[in-house]
Amino acid sequence: MLGVCYYPEHWPEDWWADDATAMRAAGITYVRIAEFAWSRIEPEPGRFDWAWLDRAIGVLGGAGLRVVMCTPTATPPKWLIDREPSILPTDENGRTRGFGSRRHTGFSSEAWIRESRRITEAVAGRYGDNQAVAGWQIDNEFGCHDTVLSYGPEDLRAFQAWLGRRYGSIGRLNEAWGTVFWSAELRSFAEVSLPVGAVTETAPAARMDFRRFSSDQVRAYCRMQADILRAHSPGRFVTHNFMGRFTGFDHHAVGEELDFATWDSYPLGFTDQFPFGDAERAPFIETGHPDMAAFHHDLYRGIGRGRFWIMEQQPGPVNWADWNPVPKPGMVRLWTWEAFAHGAEVVSYFRWRQCPFAQEQMHAGLHRPNRSVSAGGKEALQVAAELRSAGTLPASTQAPVALVFDYEAAWMLDIQPQGKDFNYIEMCFRWYEMARRLGQDVDIVASGASLAGYRTVLAPTLPHLSEAGLAALSATEATVLIGPRTGSRSVDFSIPDGLPPGPLRSMLPMQVVDVGSLRPGLSHPVTGKFAGRAIRWREWIETDADVTARFHDGSPAVVEGGRYVYLACWPDAALLEAALRHVLPAGGLGLTELPAGVRLRHRGELCFAFNYGPEPWTLPDHLVRTLVMGHPVVEPQDFACWRVAV
Amino acid sequence: MLGVCYYPEHWPEDWWADDATAMRAAGITYVRIAEFAWSRIEPEPGRFDWAWLDRAIGVLGGAGLRVVMCTPTATPPKWLIDREPSILPTDENGRTRGFGSRRHTGFSSEAWIRESRRITEAVAGRYGDNQAVAGWQIDNEFGCHDTVLSYGPEDLRAFQAWLGRRYGSIGRLNEAWGTVFWSAELRSFAEVSLPVGAVTETAPAARMDFRRFSSDQVRAYCRMQADILRAHSPGRFVTHNFMGRFTGFDHHAVGEELDFATWDSYPLGFTDQFPFGDAERAPFIETGHPDMAAFHHDLYRGIGRGRFWIMEQQPGPVNWADWNPVPKPGMVRLWTWEAFAHGAEVVSYFRWRQCPFAQEQMHAGLHRPNRSVSAGGKEALQVAAELRSAGTLPASTQAPVALVFDYEAAWMLDIQPQGKDFNYIEMCFRWYEMARRLGQDVDIVASGASLAGYRTVLAPTLPHLSEAGLAALSATEATVLIGPRTGSRSVDFSIPDGLPPGPLRSMLPMQVVDVGSLRPGLSHPVTGKFAGRAIRWREWIETDADVTARFHDGSPAVVEGGRYVYLACWPDAALLEAALRHVLPAGGLGLTELPAGVRLRHRGELCFAFNYGPEPWTLPDHLVRTLVMGHPVVEPQDFACWRVAV
Amino acid sequence: MLGVCYYPEHWPEDWWADDATAMRAAGITYVRIAEFAWSRIEPEPGRFDWAWLDRAIGVLGGAGLRVVMCTPTATPPKWLIDREPSILPTDENGRTRGFGSRRHTGFSSEAWIRESRRITEAVAGRYGDNQAVAGWQIDNEFGCHDTVLSYGPEDLRAFQAWLGRRYGSIGRLNEAWGTVFWSAELRSFAEVSLPVGAVTETAPAARMDFRRFSSDQVRAYCRMQADILRAHSPGRFVTHNFMGRFTGFDHHAVGEELDFATWDSYPLGFTDQFPFGDAERAPFIETGHPDMAAFHHDLYRGIGRGRFWIMEQQPGPVNWADWNPVPKPGMVRLWTWEAFAHGAEVVSYFRWRQCPFAQEQMHAGLHRPNRSVSAGGKEALQVAAELRSAGTLPASTQAPVALVFDYEAAWMLDIQPQGKDFNYIEMCFRWYEMARRLGQDVDIVASGASLAGYRTVLAPTLPHLSEAGLAALSATEATVLIGPRTGSRSVDFSIPDGLPPGPLRSMLPMQVVDVGSLRPGLSHPVTGKFAGRAIRWREWIETDADVTARFHDGSPAVVEGGRYVYLACWPDAALLEAALRHVLPAGGLGLTELPAGVRLRHRGELCFAFNYGPEPWTLPDHLVRTLVMGHPVVEPQDFACWRVAV
Repeated sequence: MLGVCYYPEHWPEDWWADDATAMRAAGITYVRIAEFAWSRIEPEPGRFDWAWLDRAIGVLGGAGLRVVMCTPTATPPKWLIDREPSILPTDENGRTRGFGSRRHTGFSSEAWIRESRRITEAVAGRYGDNQAVAGWQIDNEFGCHDTVLSYGPEDLRAFQAWLGRRYGSIGRLNEAWGTVFWSAELRSFAEVSLPVGAVTETAPAARMDFRRFSSDQVRAYCRMQADILRAHSPGRFVTHNFMGRFTGFDHHAVGEELDFATWDSYPLGFTDQFPFGDAERAPFIETGHPDMAAFHHDLYRGIGRGRFWIMEQQPGPVNWADWNPVPKPGMVRLWTWEAFAHGAEVVSYFRWRQCPFAQEQMHAGLHRPNRSVSAGGKEALQVAAELRSAGTLPASTQAPVALVFDYEAAWMLDIQPQGKDFNYIEMCFRWYEMARRLGQDVDIVASGASLAGYRTVLAPTLPHLSEAGLAALSATEATVLIGPRTGSRSVDFSIPDGLPPGPLRSMLPMQVVDVGSLRPGLSHPVTGKFAGRAIRWREWIETDADVTARFHDGSPAVVEGGRYVYLACWPDAALLEAALRHVLPAGGLGLTELPAGVRLRHRGELCFAFNYGPEPWTLPDHLVRTLVMGHPVVEPQDFACWRVAV
Repeated sequence: MLGVCYYPEHWPEDWWADDATAMRAAGITYVRIAEFAWSRIEPEPGRFDWAWLDRAIGVLGGAGLRVVMCTPTATPPKWLIDREPSILPTDENGRTRGFGSRRHTGFSSEAWIRESRRITEAVAGRYGDNQAVAGWQIDNEFGCHDTVLSYGPEDLRAFQAWLGRRYGSIGRLNEAWGTVFWSAELRSFAEVSLPVGAVTETAPAARMDFRRFSSDQVRAYCRMQADILRAHSPGRFVTHNFMGRFTGFDHHAVGEELDFATWDSYPLGFTDQFPFGDAERAPFIETGHPDMAAFHHDLYRGIGRGRFWIMEQQPGPVNWADWNPVPKPGMVRLWTWEAFAHGAEVVSYFRWRQCPFAQEQMHAGLHRPNRSVSAGGKEALQVAAELRSAGTLPASTQAPVALVFDYEAAWMLDIQPQGKDFNYIEMCFRWYEMARRLGQDVDIVASGASLAGYRTVLAPTLPHLSEAGLAALSATEATVLIGPRTGSRSVDFSIPDGLPPGPLRSMLPMQVVDVGSLRPGLSHPVTGKFAGRAIRWREWIETDADVTARFHDGSPAVVEGGRYVYLACWPDAALLEAALRHVLPAGGLGLTELPAGVRLRHRGELCFAFNYGPEPWTLPDHLVRTLVMGHPVVEPQDFACWRVAV
Repeated sequence: MLGVCYYPEHWPEDWWADDATAMRAAGITYVRIAEFAWSRIEPEPGRFDWAWLDRAIGVLGGAGLRVVMCTPTATPPKWLIDREPSILPTDENGRTRGFGSRRHTGFSSEAWIRESRRITEAVAGRYGDNQAVAGWQIDNEFGCHDTVLSYGPEDLRAFQAWLGRRYGSIGRLNEAWGTVFWSAELRSFAEVSLPVGAVTETAPAARMDFRRFSSDQVRAYCRMQADILRAHSPGRFVTHNFMGRFTGFDHHAVGEELDFATWDSYPLGFTDQFPFGDAERAPFIETGHPDMAAFHHDLYRGIGRGRFWIMEQQPGPVNWADWNPVPKPGMVRLWTWEAFAHGAEVVSYFRWRQCPFAQEQMHAGLHRPNRSVSAGGKEALQVAAELRSAGTLPASTQAPVALVFDYEAAWMLDIQPQGKDFNYIEMCFRWYEMARRLGQDVDIVASGASLAGYRTVLAPTLPHLSEAGLAALSATEATVLIGPRTGSRSVDFSIPDGLPPGPLRSMLPMQVVDVGSLRPGLSHPVTGKFAGRAIRWREWIETDADVTARFHDGSPAVVEGGRYVYLACWPDAALLEAALRHVLPAGGLGLTELPAGVRLRHRGELCFAFNYGPEPWTLPDHLVRTLVMGHPVVEPQDFACWRVAV
C-alpha cells in the first residue's frame, strides 16, 4: 500500500479537500500528519488550538484516507524553549545548541520529559479514539542531526544515576573502566565526569557506557510516549520513523517498544554521503547504490521483527546532501517496488507537495509547489496502478542468509577504530553487498537473535560477543563466516583473558596474538582456499585448527572449525567474493551470476530483479515463462518480477 | 596618477622629509595616512596628541603631496576596549573575538558607534579644512577577516529592531520566514533569535534577513562617518577602500554613500585563494590570473558609479595567502597600467616602505626596510615616467557588454548552494573571463541598474530578480544571456508561485520543473546551437518557447525568447564559450581571437593589450601603425597600447 | 643495557614476583614505575598509601632490578581537580580542558605548582634513599597532547609578570612588539592580553614571547621537581622522558636541568604522522622511516649533553597513530641496536605487558595480556643475548657532521611560515636524512653550542641567529652549509636593519632583497656547481661574494664566502644531494654510496649498518673481515656490525 506525508498547516485550508481527493485518486491509503505542528496545536502556553487539526483530520478521513498521527516532539516551539531553556541540548564543546531548526531537545532534560509527556497526553487524548487515526508515529527521526549525545549538567546527573544502577558500587565501576590506568580512580559516582573534553582520549569503557546510557535514554523516551499512546489509543499501531545510516542508538532496542519499524529512505542522499570512492559512486549518483535502500530494508525488517514501512520515500531530489541530483527516470518507481520486494507493508512518500518556503524548499514532493504533478508523482501513480494489478503480495519469508548487525559493535569501533578507515557500517555494507551480488536474499539480524533456519550466517565483526550472541552462533546449523575483531572485547571494553576471539574460542581454537591496521597503500596478500588481499586490518593468529588460507608470511588468514570460518582481515573485494563463493555453497546455497548493477529479491513465491546499472539485462529463458511484471529484457532503471517455485 | 600608503608613525621623524621628497620625485601625487593611528592620536582616553600628525601632514603637504586622510576606526586601542568591552564582536560560536589585531568591533555595538562618532569628529574637526587634505578614506576594508556578521546580544537587539521596521508585524515575519515549517512560529519580535547555533539548518529567509541586516549596518556605519566628514571637510572627497573577493555586504549600497570607490588590489594573493584547480592556477601563480584584477576593476568602477581608484596596489610579495610568491618582473608595472586601462583615476601602492616589524613585515613595499628601492618600486618609477609621457588619459567609456552582479545573489547561494560547488563569485568570474578571452570590454553592474546602451548583457544568475532588476532586463535592447536559478526565489526566499524563473517568465515563457546539482565526475552533454556539457548544476524545463539546445535526454538546455537566451545549467568551458560566441555577435559585437594569457581593454580611443601568458604575442599588422606604447611583439609580462577609431 | 616500564598497580600482586624474575631472566636491568600512580599513592586528600608501593619496590629491587622512580604529576587524581579546578589548563578557545585522560594541568597554575611540590616531596621523601632506586624520572612527556600552551587567567598573569621581567618598561615592550602597527600600543603590562583569539593575526613578536614564556614555565616546573629530588635523593640521577617530534618547548633548556636525557621512541607512530608523501612513506610503513629514530637519537644525545636513554621503546604496534601496523619481524631488535649504535646507554621497552583495559589496551608490550611473550618480547630476548655476547660497547664519540637545531627557529617558522609547507622539523629532517644517505654520522646540536671539531656543519635555517649562535658559526673550522631565512629576524622578530642574513653578513657579504614561497607545482631551476630545483621557498640575493649556482633568471642560488656556503632556497632532493656532495668532501669527509634503506652509524671503533629496505645489502669485501655481529649479506630488517680503525 502507498502512503504520503502531508502538512495541512502549510497550505490554504481550501486546498485540503482537493488534496485529499487527489491522494485517494492516486491510490494512497495512509497519510502521515502533524509531527512538526506543535506551534499550531499549542500557539501559547496551555492554549490549544485543535480546531484546524480536527478539520484537517476530518477532511482526510472523510476522503477515505487513514491517518498516521504524530506526536509533535521533534519541534518544541520558541515559547517553550524560552520558559524552559534547560530543554536545549549541549554539544561536546559544552555549548548549548540553540532554537531555530529541530530536535533542540536533550533526552535527559527533566523539563523536556515533563513537557513531552504533557503534549503527548494532549494529542493522544484528543485523537486517540478518532476513527480516522490508524496509528501513531512517535516523534521524528530520533538521533537526526547528531542529537543522541548531549553533554550538559542534566546529562551528567542522569549518567551518574545510570552508572549507579549499572555498577552498584564505585569500586565495580573503577574496575570496569580500568581507572587505575592514568590515575583516574573515583571515590563516588558523584565524581564521575562526562567522557568528553579531556586533554586526550578518555577511557574507552567510559565512552562505551556513555553511548549505552545515551541509547537507553532514547529508548526510555520512546517508551514513555508509547505507553501514553497505547493507553489513549487502543487498537492503533505505534511506530517511529528511523533514519537510515544512523547508529547513534540501538535501533533493535528501540524497536522493541514499537509495533513495527518504519524508516526514511533517501537512496540518493545516502549514496552521496556514504564513504564510497569516487569511481565506485559515479555510476550510481543518479540511481543510488543498488544495495543502499535494500540494506536498510533488510535491517529495519529485522528491527520491526518482520514488519516495516517506508515512512518517507524520496520522490525526487532532496536538499541535504553535499550534491543533490535528480533521480533518473524510473527510479522512484523502482525504489518503491524494491521496498515492497523486501517486504515493506506500506511505502509512504515524503512529501505530498514540495514546500516553497523554509528549510526543505529544495526537497521534491509528489506535487510541485504550483500544484502540478512532479516526475516522481507520475511514477507513484504508475506504482499505484501496478499495485492494483498485482493484487495482494505474498508474505515475506525468512531469507537463507543472515547478516549479524550490532549497534554496540558500531560504538566500539567508533571509540577504538585503531585504523582510521575501520568503519563498522561500511564493513557490514560490503559483506551485504557481496552476498547480494551473488544473488542472495539477506536478513539483517541483531546479535543474540535466533539464527535458526539460516543456511549461511555472516558476522562481519562483533567485538563484544555477548552471551546471547555466542549462544545464537553456537546453536545455528548454518555455515558461519566470522570477520576480524570478533570476540576481541569484554562487556567492559577490555581484551578477554585468553586473548581474542574470546568466547568464540569455544568454536574456533585459536588466539589472535597481534593485530595491525593497514594504511591505504599497504595490503597483505592472501592465498589458499580463498585468495585476495587484506586491506585496512590484519590479524596474526596462533591455532591448531584448520588453516585454509594464509598470508604471504605463512600466518593464518582463514581458520576453519567445523561450520565456523574465521577471516583474519578486512578483505578486499576479491577476497571477500572468494570467501562468499565458498561459504554460501557450503551452506547449500546456489549462486547467481549478475551484472554489477542488478539485484534480486524474493517475496514469497515472487522474485524481483532490479536494474540499477547502465545496460539492459536479459532474463534467462526459463524465467521468462513465469514473468508477472516487466519484460524479458530489463532496461536500466526498470525491474521485472516472476514467479518461482517455493 | 599615482599614490602611496604611508605610515609616518612607523618611521623616525627625521626620515619624513626625505620620504616626502622621494615620493614627489617618484611621481606620486597622493599619500594615504593614519588609518591605524588611533593609539598615537589619542594615547589616553580623551588626551589627543595632534602634534606629530600635524607635523607629518605639514611635511607631506609641504612637499606638494595631496593627503588622503583616514578615520582610524579599523583599530581602536586597548584602553578603549578595556573601558568598553561591548565593542568586541562575537563569533558564530558565541565567543567574543578579542583584541590584538584589527577590526575588533561590532557594527551594532552602541558603544562602538558612539566612540566612532567621537573619534571621527575629532579627526575631521582637526583636519577637515587642512589645505593638504584632498579627501578622506573611511575606516579600512569593511568586512575584512569575516567581520560583517556578529552574533552578540547587541546584534540580536539591533536585528530585532531591524525586523520590526522591515515587517511591521510578527505575523508578516512568520509568513516571510515560513516559520510554520518546523514549528518555529514567533509571537513577538522579542522572541526572534539569531539564525545561528541551532541543531541544524535555520530558516533560509531568516538567514537572508540577517545578511541584509548586517549589510545595512555596514552602510549605516559608513554613512555616519561620511556625514561627519562632509560636515567638517567641505570640498573634499569621501571614499572607502573595499577589499577584493568580499561579498559579505552590499558594496553597491555602501558605494552610494561615497564620492567614488577605491579597492585594494592583490592579484597574487587573490589568485592563491580563488578556487582555481591546480592546473589552471599553475601558469599564473607569479603573475596573477589575467582576469583577477580586471574583474575587480570593472566591478568597483560600477560601485563607484564610473569612478574608482586602486587604494592599495600590490608592489611585491604579500604575507597573507597560503603561499606568497614574488611577482614576475614587469607585473607591478603591468598591474598598474591595467588599472589605468580599466579607468582607474589613481593607483596607490601599498606601501611606501616595507615595515620590518609586526604583522605585515613580510609584505613588500616600494622601498625595503633598509630604505633601498625594491623591484616593485623600480617598476613604479617606470610607470611614473610613462605616465608623464602619456599625458592625460582619455576618459573611460561605457563597455558594450554588461555583466550583472548582485550581492543578494551571493548571499542566497551561500545560504542555499544545493550543490557544494555552486559558488556565486566563481560563476560570475567564469562568465566574465570567457567574455574577456573573446576580446570584450565588460562593465559589471548592479541588478536594477540601467542596462541601456549595452549590446550584450550577461546575467550568470539572479536567484531573486527584483522589480528593478526585471525592469532593467526588460528595458534593455541588448541580447541577454541569463543563467540558471534566475528568478528562482522571491524576496522572502521562497519558490515563486508559478515556479522559476518567476518574473522572468514574462520574457521567457517556461517553467523550471526540476533542478539537480551534479557532483564532480557527473556531467550532462548538451547539443544544438551550443554544445558542451553541464557541470555542477542542471535544470529541467517545460516551455513553449524556442529550444535551441538540448540535453542528452531531450530536455531543453537553452531556451530563447527574442533577445533573451536562458541557459539551463552551469556550463563547462566549452559550452560557455559556445554560448558567448553566439550571444556576443547576436548583440552586434565582433570577437577577437586571443591567446589564453592575453587580454584587451579600451579606454576612450586607446586599446591596451596585457600579456599574462608565457609566450610573446605579436600584434596584428594593422594595429602596429597606431602603437602608442610598447612594441609590436608584446613580451610576457608586458603590454602594448594603440589608438583605435572610436 | 635494557630496561622496561612496569605498572605493578595494573596486575595482581601475586604476579609481581614472577614478573620481576622474568625481567631479570630477560636481561633487563632497569624498571621504570609509578609515573601514573598518584590515585593509588594518595587515594584521598592527605592519606598516603605507601604499603603497596613499598612492596612493589621491594619485589623489584629484591630481584636485582634497579628502579627508575617517577613523580606522578602527569595524572593528578579527580579529587584534587575537584578541590583545585584552577589546575586545569585552558585551550585556545578559552575552554577549560577537562579531567579524564592525562596532562590536565597548566604550568602557570599556582595551585598546581603547590600540589606538585607537595607530591614530589612526599614521593622523594619516601623513596629518596631507597637502595633499589637508581634514579628519577620527572613527570612524563612534557608537552604531550599540546599542553605547553594554556590560555587562562593565571597564564595571562604569569605572562604579564614574565614580560615585566623581560622588558622592564612597557615602552620597551611596545617597541619590541611593534605595537604602533595596528594601534596596539599598551600603557602598562596589565593591559597585555594573550596573543590568541583576536580577529586575525596577532603580533608575531607577541606570539614569540608567549612561546618563550611557555617554554620557560616548563623549565621552571622541571627545575622545581629536580631541586626537590636532588635534595631528597642524593646520588641518584634525575631525568625526564621527552617525546619525539615535539617542539613546543626548548628541550635544550629543559635538558640543562637533567643529568641526562631520555626519549620515547615510536618509529612506526612517528612515520605515520610525519608529513611524508604517500609514495615516500609506503615502503617504510611497517619498519619506520630509516632516519626517524636516528634523528631523535642524535637530537636527544645532544640535549643530554652526550648521554641519553630510550625510556620507552616501541615493542610492537601502538594505539595512537591514524594507522597502527605491526612492525615487520626483526624491527624491534633493529631499533634497539640502532639506539645503542647512536650511543644510548639504556633501551627501556614500553611496556612489560600489554594492558588489557583502558586507553592503551591496543599498545603492545613485551608480554601479551595473557602473560605470553609477544613477538617484540622475543626480539628483546635476542637483543639481551646479543648484548651479553657483545660485552661493553665502546663510548660514543663526536660525529664529524653537526646539524644545528633550534627550538626558537621552530616557533618562528610556526608563527610565520609565509608558505604553508615551510615546516622546520621537516626541513631539518631532510638535511639530516640526506647526510645519512651519504653515509655520515651526525650530531644534532643547539644553536650557540660549540661547533669545534666538526668537519661539516649544516644549518638548515636559523631565522634568529643569536650572538652565541653567530659566535659558534664564526669559530668553527668546518665547512658550513647554511639554509635560507637564516639571520632574517632579530630577537624581537623584526627584519634586521641591513636586511637578512643579518649578522651572518659578517661572513657572507650579501643581502636578501626578496623572498617568495613556492606553491606545490611551482619550482625554480638551479644550475651551477649544484643543480636541482628550488621548491617551497626561494630568495633573491644581491651580493659581491662568489656565486656558485644561479636560478634560471640569473639570480644567485648559492653564495660562498670562504667555508660558508649559503643556499638561497628550500632544495628539492636533487639539489640537496648535490649540495651535500659538495660540502661534505669540502670538509674532508668521504661519502659512502648506500641503498635507499640502508644507514650506517659508528660507535667508537664499531660501525653498524641497518637495513630498513626491502632488498639484502652485501657488505663490501673489506668490511667482512672485521665483522663483529651479523653476516656479510645484511637481510632486510637486519643489521651488521664491524670494527673499523679509529
